Amino acid sequence: MKVGGVPMRPIRALPARDAVEVIDQRALPHRLLVVRLDSPQAVFTAIRDMWLRGAPLIGAAAAYGLALQMNRDAGDGALEDCAQRLRGARPTAVNLAWAIERVLCLLRPLAPAARPQAAWAAADAIAEDDVAVNRAIGEHGLVLLRAIAARRPGPVRVLTHCNAGWLATVDWGTATAPIYLAHQQGLALEVWVDETRPRNQGASLTAWEMAQAGVPHQLIADNAGGHLMQRGEVDIVLVGCDRVSARGDVCNKIGTYLKALAAHDNGVPFYVAMPLSTLDRASVDGLAEIPIEQRAEREVTHVAGRTAAGEVVEVSIAPAGTRAANPAFDVTPARLVSGLITERGVVAADAEALRHVG
Amino acid sequence: MKVGGVPMRPIRALPARDAVEVIDQRALPHRLLVVRLDSPQAVFTAIRDMWLRGAPLIGAAAAYGLALQMNRDAGDGALEDCAQRLRGARPTAVNLAWAIERVLCLLRPLAPAARPQAAWAAADAIAEDDVAVNRAIGEHGLVLLRAIAARRPGPVRVLTHCNAGWLATVDWGTATAPIYLAHQQGLALEVWVDETRPRNQGASLTAWEMAQAGVPHQLIADNAGGHLMQRGEVDIVLVGCDRVSARGDVCNKIGTYLKALAAHDNGVPFYVAMPLSTLDRASVDGLAEIPIEQRAEREVTHVAGRTAAGEVVEVSIAPAGTRAANPAFDVTPARLVSGLITERGVVAADAEALRHVG
Repeated sequence: MKVGGVPMRPIRALPARDAVEVIDQRALPHRLLVVRLDSPQAVFTAIRDMWLRGAPLIGAAAAYGLALQMNRDAGDGALEDCAQRLRGARPTAVNLAWAIERVLCLLRPLAPAARPQAAWAAADAIAEDDVAVNRAIGEHGLVLLRAIAARRPGPVRVLTHCNAGWLATVDWGTATAPIYLAHQQGLALEVWVDETRPRNQGASLTAWEMAQAGVPHQLIADNAGGHLMQRGEVDIVLVGCDRVSARGDVCNKIGTYLKALAAHDNGVPFYVAMPLSTLDRASVDGLAEIPIEQRAEREVTHVAGRTAAGEVVEVSIAPAGTRAANPAFDVTPARLVSGLITERGVVAADAEALRHVG
Repeated sequence: MKVGGVPMRPIRALPARDAVEVIDQRALPHRLLVVRLDSPQAVFTAIRDMWLRGAPLIGAAAAYGLALQMNRDAGDGALEDCAQRLRGARPTAVNLAWAIERVLCLLRPLAPAARPQAAWAAADAIAEDDVAVNRAIGEHGLVLLRAIAARRPGPVRVLTHCNAGWLATVDWGTATAPIYLAHQQGLALEVWVDETRPRNQGASLTAWEMAQAGVPHQLIADNAGGHLMQRGEVDIVLVGCDRVSARGDVCNKIGTYLKALAAHDNGVPFYVAMPLSTLDRASVDGLAEIPIEQRAEREVTHVAGRTAAGEVVEVSIAPAGTRAANPAFDVTPARLVSGLITERGVVAADAEALRHVG
């Protein structure tokens, strides 16, 4: 996608193969900050501290982290240690482990001397595959948006939660891919952007993406989506996911479940854009089996933003000393999911359908 | 309730009957600011701009606004004009119109000379009635909390949304009255406080109230409540309301409906503390008939808080120029409401039960 008209990706390997350049997403929407990561430690920190976030993107970043490690020490011990460490950077998204496993399977049989080149090639392949996967998700999701447009006049009104946009992937985004394709093809859209507390990825990232792409959108408090659905102002909910269980339970950003309940209660279709790399065949009951990351209290008690003077600061919104709980994800039961938009097409959120895909 | 150990109310008529003192709630939780309102215009502004908020409190404040008007000009024209103006300060809460109507009915038959004293007496009566009503709601709600405590060990875990606390009333609060009574009687509690974007009344007011009263509590993002209910970490949801229709549809702060859906989906009881003054017998279908206030975009695109240096500032959380939608309330259908806690006892949320109460 483009920023100020110039094509850009949230991660890019440098030609010398000694570093990657990434957008430090913590600075958005106030500043576009591109930083260089030249060690596996730097990649680990960037994932853990959410300079980079989004299930597909942290998978690709971890693959580059392994490649950076191979530049330094490509021995078996260093490879396994680095993989182990990167795998622990975030607990919930399954793509992280999936990407690391994919690189490990390629590198383990090779002699250490052959590993650096193979690792960079593998990371590049994961990144390019992600672009192709998201583009395909876009094509399949576009069919859904076109069908809505054919049924009623006016723009197709999409509600999305968090950022499952191009900033969360290598390009296109997952939930946003159908939106961008539709917009490019002239379909009228209006996107409701959930601000997505506590980290405000909707307000800071999705709203920024929509503005860059020229897609009409309105920011809303996370509380507002149910009301809009009751009033018939939402045609479809489109979200991403961090892990989907074998029976179709969807783990995604905290609050997704509430939107799924409201969609179900109001007959609004609720679709999840899901690269097959997000499918965790090892878990069945998503609610019981998917680990939910508990993040810092400060994310809830404080909000970062820009002052009128242009300075970015963190402000406290609660009394000093207030304790907070901060589960980062929730699980939407498969029964509330209208369908999973994968790179192979739209699949029902049930064990039988998921067994035959991919 | 007490602040720093000293009894305090959010509104208080001064002995000279020439002004009221109110807590300017916009400064909380960072500063306790008491301001003097000495004209009906000042009361109007304080209600419209939310120095005061909460359905019962703005009813009492409007009554004092009429009393201040009677000090100046107690003629029929001035009375009706002032009532008309105050009624329009906020559109959703029915208590505002109810309190104004109650004062008007008393004053209209009187000679102008008799009106000032009668108006102050009427406003005082509305305020004292509110205290008694909330105390009674507390007693009836306490029975529910005791029943939960009797069924399982550990603290009773209450989730609440927005601020239906003493700051929203003349004293006790509505949804918080059972909490305060239970706490005073030694029942162990843990309160989940929804931050309640966009204005953060949970983070700034409810968390502050809980801290002042010493009630254990944790602040959560509005997105988190569904997840906590799925995990069995919520025993009861207790919220206030701004207007309840004749069949029991509950209009309350935006996002209440999402919590009601989650409670229903997880078998968690969902109770609404409802002074009978909040019952709007003239509306039946709450979703179709209750007007929903649309507030400023800036409440969504900006957040107010305190910097590390102690300064209270407003920061932007979205790209410059982002449009926002800001419906302030939503309507929870009666089918999702376990019961309405009124000053006369707990009533089912249906037309038949509501016809016989009050």
